[in-house]
Amino acid sequence: VSGDGESHAEFLADFAYLSSIGGLPSGGVDREAATIADAKQRTWLGGWLAARGFDVHVDEVGNQFGLMTFVEGAPYVLTGSHLDSQPTSGRFDGAYGVLASAHAANRVAKGVRSGAINAVFNLAVVNWFNEEGSRFPPSMMGSAVFTGKLSLDTALAVTDARGVSVRRALDEIGYRGDFDGLPVQSYAEIHIEQGKELEQTGHQIGIVTGTWGARKLAVTVRGEQSHTGSTLMADRKDALLGAAHLIAAARALCEEIDGVLHTAVSHLEVYPNSPVVVASEVRSNLDLRSPDPAVLEEAERRMRVTAVRIERDLNVRIDLAKTHSWDRNDYTPAGFALSERASADAGYSHREILTVAGHDSTNLKDLVPTVMLFVPSRDGVSHNEYEYTEDADLLAGLDVMGGVVRQMVSGALQSV
Amino acid sequence: VSGDGESHAEFLADFAYLSSIGGLPSGGVDREAATIADAKQRTWLGGWLAARGFDVHVDEVGNQFGLMTFVEGAPYVLTGSHLDSQPTSGRFDGAYGVLASAHAANRVAKGVRSGAINAVFNLAVVNWFNEEGSRFPPSMMGSAVFTGKLSLDTALAVTDARGVSVRRALDEIGYRGDFDGLPVQSYAEIHIEQGKELEQTGHQIGIVTGTWGARKLAVTVRGEQSHTGSTLMADRKDALLGAAHLIAAARALCEEIDGVLHTAVSHLEVYPNSPVVVASEVRSNLDLRSPDPAVLEEAERRMRVTAVRIERDLNVRIDLAKTHSWDRNDYTPAGFALSERASADAGYSHREILTVAGHDSTNLKDLVPTVMLFVPSRDGVSHNEYEYTEDADLLAGLDVMGGVVRQMVSGALQSV
Repeated sequence: VSGDGESHAEFLADFAYLSSIGGLPSGGVDREAATIADAKQRTWLGGWLAARGFDVHVDEVGNQFGLMTFVEGAPYVLTGSHLDSQPTSGRFDGAYGVLASAHAANRVAKGVRSGAINAVFNLAVVNWFNEEGSRFPPSMMGSAVFTGKLSLDTALAVTDARGVSVRRALDEIGYRGDFDGLPVQSYAEIHIEQGKELEQTGHQIGIVTGTWGARKLAVTVRGEQSHTGSTLMADRKDALLGAAHLIAAARALCEEIDGVLHTAVSHLEVYPNSPVVVASEVRSNLDLRSPDPAVLEEAERRMRVTAVRIERDLNVRIDLAKTHSWDRNDYTPAGFALSERASADAGYSHREILTVAGHDSTNLKDLVPTVMLFVPSRDGVSHNEYEYTEDADLLAGLDVMGGVVRQMVSGALQSV
Repeated sequence: VSGDGESHAEFLADFAYLSSIGGLPSGGVDREAATIADAKQRTWLGGWLAARGFDVHVDEVGNQFGLMTFVEGAPYVLTGSHLDSQPTSGRFDGAYGVLASAHAANRVAKGVRSGAINAVFNLAVVNWFNEEGSRFPPSMMGSAVFTGKLSLDTALAVTDARGVSVRRALDEIGYRGDFDGLPVQSYAEIHIEQGKELEQTGHQIGIVTGTWGARKLAVTVRGEQSHTGSTLMADRKDALLGAAHLIAAARALCEEIDGVLHTAVSHLEVYPNSPVVVASEVRSNLDLRSPDPAVLEEAERRMRVTAVRIERDLNVRIDLAKTHSWDRNDYTPAGFALSERASADAGYSHREILTVAGHDSTNLKDLVPTVMLFVPSRDGVSHNEYEYTEDADLLAGLDVMGGVVRQMVSGALQSV
């Protein structure tokens, strides 16, 4: 099941069309979860899959599946990613993976039908709901519900900044379904790297061996409303000032700590957010990531110490609540060899790599044997309209995914 | 025109009713400009004034006037404040001044009708539109348009966070009028102090002699979207981190600078404000206040130096644009003696004081002779639901306003 000129051209044409849905002049896209743009791309993907013989279904949290059944009663090899994007973001993040999975699955299905491939398992393509989490936190929502890490009711009740719930938003776009109970045997996903390692080392395929650990915290800083002009400085309890000190401290921690650590605060809501009222409450996120569990533990400990110091210095109260986290966690070792074979068979250079970002595969790998592949990102630019991956790298990834899915359907990845 | 038991009881009853409009369980109010609560309180005030013989008019920016004409063709002594509030705030800020002006004007009108007062000028009560500026910036909007400091078209085009313009919001509540051309001879306003000076020195009446200078700047920090996890720390251009450093620096400046300075950042908008995307743009305010023009100048200079340092250190761009400011500016000296007489006549202790906060009188005093009075604020609590002034102090202020307005209508304040 290797690529040929025709299937490559079809892939690039499909990707160009998909990229036009919610497309921005920059070449990026704006397709947040359960928006009209998301509805349109879902309907396009559903049509694409149905036209090629996949049975299209949507589950209760909006995950979209295309099923190709070869062996009645056998479980499914699942492959996919997510079509939703950040509000203004690149066209590759997620969408490339869904389309590469769909094309790879279609190649394999053709191979099974022609007798070239002996299917032991069935095959399904998935477009996970709301991987980005920008409109409805947390990220990786659809795969978290699918794997039982987040309850359906909790997910459906999450509201966006305008108070619209996931339930209502999915109903509005007509993508809250009732499909249930897909037996999954294994999972494969491909994604752009969102880093510079493949580019800098000159490899086309990254075989993801593990994921950095992440701790996501919800920060609440509470002060007291007062007048920005007349209130004596000593009397102020300024929640936004408290948040500012915490943000600066989180960044400084990356240099202070012994080990590799990435930190960020990127979401912030101020109350009452008036130009003449000192803020009484600020809510923000705090994102800590490291490949080393001890560094992550120490980072959280130090942030808690810093919060106590800020509380005392600035007369505010700070609450740090863990919302979700994942540990440094390895992908299925049997999948590495399988991926290496697929890459070597297709003639592309590969390298083992860690993922810093979370992916839907981060959820799936705790449930079933999981393969995760990367293709290069130019300059590591990510969550940005100017995110870019060369066509040649997109096609290399597609070909390797074809080989990976072929082996998985043939029964090559049966144990964790 | 001094108070008596009956008029005092009526004032407190009216104030209690007014406080129930948009009232919160805390005793505070939520009556932002051109909301339904604002419409209700305007209609109540209009009815109150009309029932007492005032001609009620609304101008093109929603300022509400009640005119009492004694001398055909003569200009008007104007007195009032604002009924609008911050989103959750105290019931005294602004509303006390409007009601005290209305009651004082009614007392004086009775005096003129009975022949006890010889009116040289006419008398008008005003409820200025949108003094708070929380929904529609800038603050003191209605009086700024009235005094020609802000164009009507600019004011009407300002939009709130949901994109609703002042024009549409005023139309929706039915308070965009066409009244024009009120000839104003002088202005008087009373307000809670929003500071602790009267309370700490044990005085009931503050005679405001001048206003601190203020500089209001719009801050824009520009960075670049990237992934909160995978982007290398060295590659990030984090607009929110830049804003955090600027907020911390603004606070620190109060201790560093030689002189009295108040600073605040209280309003902040983050884009794209996603939990997994490093912010590419942050917009915020910067509020600098000092009684000393040299300190204010130096504060702005140092903030600009700090901004350049942050730009270099954090690889972001910062723009500081002055939006509005007022200089340290004195009230009409002839008004001080007039206020002292009114206070002494009514038997209350008084003290000269500066105002840190801006008031509608800040605009009016640049146009006509202006008197500004304060009553105490418990603990100086301001722009807070728990803002509080004792009934006895409210009534003292009312009585002194009665004396001030009586003298002004009699022609006692004829030169700046």
